[in-house]
Amino acid sequence: MSVTAAKGFTAAGIAAGIKENGNPDLALVVNTGPRRAAAGVFTSNRVKAAPVLWSQQVLADGELTAVVLNSGGANACTGPKGFQDTHATAEKVAEVLSDRGAPVGAGEVAVASTGLIGVLLPMDKLLPGVEKAAGELSAHGGEKAAIAIKTTDTVHKTAVVTKDGWTVGGMAKGAGMLAPGLATMLVVLTTDADLGAEDLDSALRQATRLTFDRVDSDGCMSTNDTVLLLASGAAGVTPARDEFAEAVREVCADLARQLIGDAEGASKDIRIEVINAATEDDAVEVGRSIARNNLLKCAIHGEDPNWGRVLSAIGTTSAAFEPDALNVAINGVWVCKNGSVGEDRELVDMRYREVVITADLAAGSESAVIWANDLTADYVHENSAYSS
Amino acid sequence: MSVTAAKGFTAAGIAAGIKENGNPDLALVVNTGPRRAAAGVFTSNRVKAAPVLWSQQVLADGELTAVVLNSGGANACTGPKGFQDTHATAEKVAEVLSDRGAPVGAGEVAVASTGLIGVLLPMDKLLPGVEKAAGELSAHGGEKAAIAIKTTDTVHKTAVVTKDGWTVGGMAKGAGMLAPGLATMLVVLTTDADLGAEDLDSALRQATRLTFDRVDSDGCMSTNDTVLLLASGAAGVTPARDEFAEAVREVCADLARQLIGDAEGASKDIRIEVINAATEDDAVEVGRSIARNNLLKCAIHGEDPNWGRVLSAIGTTSAAFEPDALNVAINGVWVCKNGSVGEDRELVDMRYREVVITADLAAGSESAVIWANDLTADYVHENSAYSS
Repeated sequence: MSVTAAKGFTAAGIAAGIKENGNPDLALVVNTGPRRAAAGVFTSNRVKAAPVLWSQQVLADGELTAVVLNSGGANACTGPKGFQDTHATAEKVAEVLSDRGAPVGAGEVAVASTGLIGVLLPMDKLLPGVEKAAGELSAHGGEKAAIAIKTTDTVHKTAVVTKDGWTVGGMAKGAGMLAPGLATMLVVLTTDADLGAEDLDSALRQATRLTFDRVDSDGCMSTNDTVLLLASGAAGVTPARDEFAEAVREVCADLARQLIGDAEGASKDIRIEVINAATEDDAVEVGRSIARNNLLKCAIHGEDPNWGRVLSAIGTTSAAFEPDALNVAINGVWVCKNGSVGEDRELVDMRYREVVITADLAAGSESAVIWANDLTADYVHENSAYSS
Repeated sequence: MSVTAAKGFTAAGIAAGIKENGNPDLALVVNTGPRRAAAGVFTSNRVKAAPVLWSQQVLADGELTAVVLNSGGANACTGPKGFQDTHATAEKVAEVLSDRGAPVGAGEVAVASTGLIGVLLPMDKLLPGVEKAAGELSAHGGEKAAIAIKTTDTVHKTAVVTKDGWTVGGMAKGAGMLAPGLATMLVVLTTDADLGAEDLDSALRQATRLTFDRVDSDGCMSTNDTVLLLASGAAGVTPARDEFAEAVREVCADLARQLIGDAEGASKDIRIEVINAATEDDAVEVGRSIARNNLLKCAIHGEDPNWGRVLSAIGTTSAAFEPDALNVAINGVWVCKNGSVGEDRELVDMRYREVVITADLAAGSESAVIWANDLTADYVHENSAYSS
């Protein structure tokens, strides 16, 4: 499963001692070929962590042999020393992999980190950890790798789609600081399909645009978001471009849904469907505005179908609509019709974890879905009681 | 004090029975002249409540004789019936004032409402309430009026500035749904200075731009925000334009600070100073991004000087800056220097209610101050436990 579901990959997850509680905190994913094509998508936050800057650079040639990931520290806002540490980590991975087979350069190794911003990584623990992880690499190591990248995640997240002779699989971590472009997440996807970097890049961008970029748990954008897709070609099959893109989208959608389902302190997963928009951009803008409205998020937590807060969120956007033509349904009950009172709000059943808000802009035929969470006292507690 | 501190105004605040708990819920402010110049600023939310649409319309000629305000219901998203109710309220005010003196038309009466969105006002209680309020109008009624417009406010808010022979005073309500352009608030300012509508409008826009528009308690923009400034000319003094504008700004700043100090569930008032920005717009954009970062707001609640969350908020803006030139101080301790670790975060003392975050963009010489609140379990409770 996970990143080792596709042929041509090994992985490991170990406890290097970066986390003080002794939990697993270092993962290694290695592409054993024959191809080493790769693509990546990174945070659009202008304050980027050292590993993001590094990985963007090494991906420029569309090839990766390995990805090393650590939890327990984001290595963001750590200055030149932080970048040197990322570089040293990649060098160490190259060294230990070269010791075990064909020569690997640091420029073939992506690095991803997650945890507290503004703290240097304990390199005296991380580098020996790389050595230990390399010793445990296995074609069945995907699950352990997924476990090692958890931070406040309560469960590890993996997904696999298998098609005719080829597979796309992946792992993700992310529980807070989840917002568009991308959610705070580290994701590694692997495939044994025989494809080049350009096809990977195209499929990955299409997929993230409709999945991770439409997850908005708490409106906060991370400094470390990284989504990588590696292809080994080990299946010896070259799928049609559309079929491959759809498989990548499926895996990303599955992982994105798991991220929302495990968001910090959340008691509800909110599916916001914006329909009849003039453009897809309008639909996304409105969906995000609803997703980020703290008052509405509190109301959903309280199982209160407070559609007035939906309308006030729509009203802050520049999307095309007429206020007196707006319709809003909560869990299928059209509580707002023509911008005013609609069906009886007492009819809305909000007992279940998933809540669906449908916002009908009555301005066209485009639509979009944004996933969000409610705002809870547990979220406040989890993010105020200690640094993360 | 309040709206009756300036000469030429009477006011009243009574319980009309709009609120089920029997608290005061209807205020009336009357300009007894000799002038009736007025200006107003309204929510930029495109979903505007009926009273906002009405008041914008009656203000077109720059004159107002009275303002009637109710709490207990926002009369927003209430369709044509809601607008008819606002119109009927203004007609009723005109009628009862005409009965007591010179003829007044409904077109001289502004209406403001606050409370739950999407519910029609109980007109059978509101209209008799107008009659009752008119009977209690007094040159000392300003405080009662300020009390009657409270919703979840724990205290009523008034401010007065007196200059050489003339006065600007006012009242405000607002505790949640506070965000730029404007905060969720109803504000009535009065002056006995002898000025026309154009001067009032100019002074009011200058003042709100730097005060109410820079308050962002919870990122949520209301459908009902209204700030009115009425001039009676009763002092017989025409102040210099700049001096008057400064007095209006002082009163607005005082009221805005009171709004932040009484925000729903807040335990901290956060003063966000953005300095050395390339433009004032950049400074405001960065300030608002910091103000709306839920993770940072939680950290401040937990008295955790988590400057990484400040940087990640700055990174989402389009302001001019270099990530490795950013500096951040929390309560005067420069915990982030050159985009990396600065002074020891243990030095930051966050025990007091006011917290100052200084973000130095190192990109120019412009600055701005945004006021925000922390995010607390009490905020979640207050906004999830019942509809508001």
